[in-house]
Amino acid sequence: MSTKTWRIGLIGFGNVGQGFVRILANKRDILKNRYGFEFKLVGIADPIKGSVYDPDGLDPKTLIKLIDEKGNIKDYPKGRKDIDSLTICRSDDIDIVVEVTPTNIKTGEPGLTHIREALKNKKHVVTSNKGPIALAYRELKELAVKNGVMLRFEGVVLSGTPSINLVLESMAGVDVSKVEGIVNGTTNFILTKMEEGLTYEDALKEAQRLGYAEADPTADVEGWDAAIKTVIIANVLMGGSITINDVEREGITKITREDVRRALNNRKRIKLIARVVREGDSIKASVKPEEVDLNHPLANVMGAINALTFYTDHLGPVTIIGPGAGRIETGQAILSDILAIHRYIMGGRY
Amino acid sequence: MSTKTWRIGLIGFGNVGQGFVRILANKRDILKNRYGFEFKLVGIADPIKGSVYDPDGLDPKTLIKLIDEKGNIKDYPKGRKDIDSLTICRSDDIDIVVEVTPTNIKTGEPGLTHIREALKNKKHVVTSNKGPIALAYRELKELAVKNGVMLRFEGVVLSGTPSINLVLESMAGVDVSKVEGIVNGTTNFILTKMEEGLTYEDALKEAQRLGYAEADPTADVEGWDAAIKTVIIANVLMGGSITINDVEREGITKITREDVRRALNNRKRIKLIARVVREGDSIKASVKPEEVDLNHPLANVMGAINALTFYTDHLGPVTIIGPGAGRIETGQAILSDILAIHRYIMGGRY
Repeated sequence: MSTKTWRIGLIGFGNVGQGFVRILANKRDILKNRYGFEFKLVGIADPIKGSVYDPDGLDPKTLIKLIDEKGNIKDYPKGRKDIDSLTICRSDDIDIVVEVTPTNIKTGEPGLTHIREALKNKKHVVTSNKGPIALAYRELKELAVKNGVMLRFEGVVLSGTPSINLVLESMAGVDVSKVEGIVNGTTNFILTKMEEGLTYEDALKEAQRLGYAEADPTADVEGWDAAIKTVIIANVLMGGSITINDVEREGITKITREDVRRALNNRKRIKLIARVVREGDSIKASVKPEEVDLNHPLANVMGAINALTFYTDHLGPVTIIGPGAGRIETGQAILSDILAIHRYIMGGRY
Repeated sequence: MSTKTWRIGLIGFGNVGQGFVRILANKRDILKNRYGFEFKLVGIADPIKGSVYDPDGLDPKTLIKLIDEKGNIKDYPKGRKDIDSLTICRSDDIDIVVEVTPTNIKTGEPGLTHIREALKNKKHVVTSNKGPIALAYRELKELAVKNGVMLRFEGVVLSGTPSINLVLESMAGVDVSKVEGIVNGTTNFILTKMEEGLTYEDALKEAQRLGYAEADPTADVEGWDAAIKTVIIANVLMGGSITINDVEREGITKITREDVRRALNNRKRIKLIARVVREGDSIKASVKPEEVDLNHPLANVMGAINALTFYTDHLGPVTIIGPGAGRIETGQAILSDILAIHRYIMGGRY
């Protein structure tokens, strides 16, 4: 099998970046033998975990060992340390920029600047950063096309569970009239725990203890995270051009244990449902708690698991169920997008 | 947007071929505007419905009108009629051969010969024919690589519901240790009807009346159709090399209405479960009726709907639920594969 070596630069070394590098550390031989995919991880830039750059390639195993033992990569034994994210975006040593800095749904920064700069410098970009895609999908897509490179972002909706590429590639040719689902694992976990008898407050604490919810849980429990995902679904998969202000949004903070119990007694379950519907020429998006019948496909999606149902012209409803977050899970989204770039450049053989 | 015109030859004009041409008739403008995909349907060969060939392109709308009104295309107003399937495989006027003749799980013919001949003549091949893929996947894949063309077959397992491309492309990079699901709509429909109170015999008659089951229902009710799909899943998605004789197989003919009722009373549901499991270096496949808990993701897959759960290293279980058969549904599988070839040749932009 002919192989190709890809030179990868990584911006952001938090959970997702670490998950991705962990996969690279474990699967180097499999990626080479199965896909003809070889790689050099040329640089990592992260203002907290540390930055390091070596055109000969960094060793993923050493990076993971440093993170596990010291919590940062500042003592990496080789390479330059005087680089930042823009070095990665502009380097002639890099073919693919992986942008996995934290999401900012108001400005998209710093991811938006990184992605623009990398595309302008003719790097393929793979990201799991929701902000830039929700705010500037069309601009970024055009910039990629103009520069002859690819922009891919499977990880922005359901982490590595296929959603974006599922529709755009595996179901290419369908028209999607409606999408509904559960796209926030934190709130679904809390609702599941409330069904088991916990109050909202105790269920939230449990979610925080397990790392599902942040110290400030607003983005999840008030539906902002789900809302930004509906914007991406609307604009990328259904040809819309909406913003987060267009999304009708209601969180789960007013749901009580008694509401959950009353619904169950009526053979229903309360779920935070994200929905995007085409109505004539316009697209309507909403995120709100709803009672769904127990035999509804979404009713049995429990805990931190997510699901989306796509209503299509050729196939009717198609539902995918899988993890919606997690470091390895989102690292897998990055990997699948990079392998897609590899396949396209290699001419589609697998 | 730059466009490319693909010259397509179609072998087989039964349900799937008609579904595919129906989609082409409806979506010509959308395919051009959204994907830069243009086509000429150069020839169709079918020993019963008729054969016709015109390098200038046949009109899909006229073909569908003839099928709807006369049941065949023998009166198509233009083109040569003195062609057969091998003309399609060998023609210099054709880039992509669509092979949708009926499945023969013992010999793979005539599909196997068609696919070999088309690949040798450097045509891309798209098929929904289970026989050739189950019997000769490795040989055909090598033949495609050797001739610099693509062989794609999304339609062989769940019609247009993504399964093959879901794993090989959208989830590229994962390792799959187990697959289980419901991959035969006829038996799932019969079991659903038995839960509603019908006997096996009456449920089968209802399935036959609705066109879900054949006059001779053996292939479905004895589990052969599901078994051939497990062979494809094992060999294509899990690196196996098994044959249908390796599949432990039991159909649903011995299930009684009472069995179905007894399971339900225990909060379980009887489903014909297809399963492929990696055990060390070997792969084990089975198809048999099982009682699954009502809150199991597969328990609520009812009627003619199918589902598959893929157990992966990076994502844990990922489940897809959608139609498993149907003319438009399988036509969609053909379309998505052709659009994939188009994307790969155009360099991966969408």
